[in-house]
Amino acid sequence: MDLKTKHLLDIASLSKEEIEDILNLAENLKEILYRPIPKVPTLRGKLIIYLFYEPSTRTRFSFEKAAKTLSADTLTFTGKGTSIEKGETLLDTIKNLEAIGADLFVIRHPVAGAPHFVAKHSKVSIVNAGDGTHEHPTQALLDLLTVREKLGTLSGLKIAIVGDIKHSRVAHSDILAFQKMGSTVYVSGPAQLLPDLKEEDYYKITKGGFKICYKLEEAIKEADVVIALRIQKERHGEALVPSFLEYHEFFGLKPEHLELIKEKAILMHPGPINWGVELAYEMEKYPFQVILDQVENGVAVRMAILLKLLTGEKNYENLN
Amino acid sequence: MDLKTKHLLDIASLSKEEIEDILNLAENLKEILYRPIPKVPTLRGKLIIYLFYEPSTRTRFSFEKAAKTLSADTLTFTGKGTSIEKGETLLDTIKNLEAIGADLFVIRHPVAGAPHFVAKHSKVSIVNAGDGTHEHPTQALLDLLTVREKLGTLSGLKIAIVGDIKHSRVAHSDILAFQKMGSTVYVSGPAQLLPDLKEEDYYKITKGGFKICYKLEEAIKEADVVIALRIQKERHGEALVPSFLEYHEFFGLKPEHLELIKEKAILMHPGPINWGVELAYEMEKYPFQVILDQVENGVAVRMAILLKLLTGEKNYENLN
Amino acid sequence: MDLKTKHLLDIASLSKEEIEDILNLAENLKEILYRPIPKVPTLRGKLIIYLFYEPSTRTRFSFEKAAKTLSADTLTFTGKGTSIEKGETLLDTIKNLEAIGADLFVIRHPVAGAPHFVAKHSKVSIVNAGDGTHEHPTQALLDLLTVREKLGTLSGLKIAIVGDIKHSRVAHSDILAFQKMGSTVYVSGPAQLLPDLKEEDYYKITKGGFKICYKLEEAIKEADVVIALRIQKERHGEALVPSFLEYHEFFGLKPEHLELIKEKAILMHPGPINWGVELAYEMEKYPFQVILDQVENGVAVRMAILLKLLTGEKNYENLN
Repeated sequence: MDLKTKHLLDIASLSKEEIEDILNLAENLKEILYRPIPKVPTLRGKLIIYLFYEPSTRTRFSFEKAAKTLSADTLTFTGKGTSIEKGETLLDTIKNLEAIGADLFVIRHPVAGAPHFVAKHSKVSIVNAGDGTHEHPTQALLDLLTVREKLGTLSGLKIAIVGDIKHSRVAHSDILAFQKMGSTVYVSGPAQLLPDLKEEDYYKITKGGFKICYKLEEAIKEADVVIALRIQKERHGEALVPSFLEYHEFFGLKPEHLELIKEKAILMHPGPINWGVELAYEMEKYPFQVILDQVENGVAVRMAILLKLLTGEKNYENLN
Repeated sequence: MDLKTKHLLDIASLSKEEIEDILNLAENLKEILYRPIPKVPTLRGKLIIYLFYEPSTRTRFSFEKAAKTLSADTLTFTGKGTSIEKGETLLDTIKNLEAIGADLFVIRHPVAGAPHFVAKHSKVSIVNAGDGTHEHPTQALLDLLTVREKLGTLSGLKIAIVGDIKHSRVAHSDILAFQKMGSTVYVSGPAQLLPDLKEEDYYKITKGGFKICYKLEEAIKEADVVIALRIQKERHGEALVPSFLEYHEFFGLKPEHLELIKEKAILMHPGPINWGVELAYEMEKYPFQVILDQVENGVAVRMAILLKLLTGEKNYENLN
Repeated sequence: MDLKTKHLLDIASLSKEEIEDILNLAENLKEILYRPIPKVPTLRGKLIIYLFYEPSTRTRFSFEKAAKTLSADTLTFTGKGTSIEKGETLLDTIKNLEAIGADLFVIRHPVAGAPHFVAKHSKVSIVNAGDGTHEHPTQALLDLLTVREKLGTLSGLKIAIVGDIKHSRVAHSDILAFQKMGSTVYVSGPAQLLPDLKEEDYYKITKGGFKICYKLEEAIKEADVVIALRIQKERHGEALVPSFLEYHEFFGLKPEHLELIKEKAILMHPGPINWGVELAYEMEKYPFQVILDQVENGVAVRMAILLKLLTGEKNYENLN
């Protein structure tokens, strides 16, 4: 099944079937990464341009590995030493890079909605790699793939997300994604980092599959999946948490919490991790911690996205 | 026909025949960009090194697309995090990169003549991608290709260039290029941004195909081609124009000017554009505005340059 | 012969046989660089990630040329615009990049021992491209290759190293490397830049093949090889030499020294060179100055290292 649009902008506009289709393709593509020569010629001659207006390692390198595995060419545009410094508008930049020959843009931008704005005016495909505090859809897709791979289903699960829910684009995409697949998301964190939306408004969006918990224990009790978010001490000069020590005391995941969650419940984190803050150091040894599986699945999910957006279904045969 | 030299340093040292030869090759190569897989193995194993001592997006990415289309390898040297910070001379940098295996350098440098200096001491080919306020020859070649493509000829045309003629390497290359091909160039702009040279000196250089106009209307009247230059408000702390608003009032191209220029006269700009300054916002909709065609032709022209400098004519067969 | 470990961390842990094996392979691989298309598919699909926490041109570009020649993919991680700015630990960075698909890391780090620390925890190969003032093993290997190529042997030579011995990782690797191959290393430089170790301690390490000379003339007299080191005026705000002029006067290599060294003794420098400081300008014309040969041999040595660490011996056949 093809995506309804030529872009991947957010989880909000994907159907359950589209999501399943991406996950199935990603699962199939993963095998390529284990070949002695992990490279197929499928996207040869395609030019992917990264427009990264915010720093990133794992996301950009993950797309890079996906692109290289599929033999696409790539260029990285970071706003430093580029026409942005000369005051060019985002739209003119896009049009110029299209004229140069871009086939797809991967955009990370501090402004929520920037990729959507660009998509309205772009001839080629746009992938949102994080827009402000809005969404980070490929992260949610790799989280889904990881949970499905480890637990065998995405339906009927209790997913706990802990941390700065309010400012986290990962949380926003995850809440929508897990709910769409038939699971319920419980979020918890310091009161000032919980969503501004009232619970009943979220219910409307998520059709009930969502709950705000002021106490960590309520959120993670009997959880199948616990996702700890990266916590920032400050944001734009405003203090988000009084101290990391205090945050760890009240919302850091510690060995004592393992008794609350389900047996074999998996522990996830989008990275980079502040060990000793959102996760106690001991949690690295927890046998169902799957943080590096998430990273690996990120490559497979991004391969699937690039393939779906840059080729017709019929070209998938070219993977040997 | 091969180029007389192994470098592409400026328009001044190219003959009309050499220019036509580059344009013909570029025109032929353009077809490759429209193939389902726009990639040929012609320059496989060649290493192109960009030495960019000034920021650039469109020029570097245009060379990148050209290089990738021809399967050349590339490395980018920007002066940040490199041996320049350790005080290495430009010439030692060049010699070292040659010893590493560079086959061609694309150089952008704030000092006029820097590529010429390097070319005297380099064993491999040098392409000037802009040297100070001196020349930007590949930009002029893509401008020629665009005009020839749209108007069918480069001879007997009236070309108007508007803006900061004095500091623009694009203007300097364009003046020479269009005049060599048999057209006449009229330049206009604020008095302080017109060339220091007296008109009669320019006449000697351009054999008459050149005129300085203090009034915009005189330059663009009956023009076949209007090239608006990017205007900077300041340069090295010195104010070039009192205000963008005033510049736009007197030298910005606006819908009212369309009655003065020839029917179907084309409008060009080297980019990045300050909309509302050198071009009124309405001019984006002008049907003979060909700014993105210029960008696309830039890739074809640079493919032609790389091919001419890095291979013998006999290798051109390897383009399928 | 395979390396005993899967890493290349320092000269100290290599045996004479391992070193000879690398040099022999490098010598064989050099021929590839002279082919019309200098590219073999041997490392297709392998992903090399550069972790450069200190600036570098020649080393990184040399690895890049080696990697491209062998058809490996590469990504560069410089600490700017990456997760380092978000406070990620070096080890988490490594684990994440491994999960993304890295097959080998090339690490340059200001802290001595950083690559060794990483190697203990990494599943994939680590190449040390310079760690603090400790070692720079690929530089020593290319120095060995150059001497062997020019003088036909590495045994029984007098090697003079002049400059800042104390802080130079090149010197530290060279001292060990030349001594292991059966030559004697004489070092000289300003007293404050000579090693802290007493000569008798060095003797233990180098089994006698090492001598500290307070006078330049003693070190270079009858030398077969003279290696001038790059000199820094300051380091971390501390003055290393009172003035470059004074340094040049007492330890700069000048034409007058050519009478002291052996006929056809070769002159080397790891670059970038401060002409007029460690080398008089006239020395560029010395017929046995082999500085650019060193650069070229650097590519061959790095090809050999990448090949040894990334493939089994049996794959070497894939070089045509």
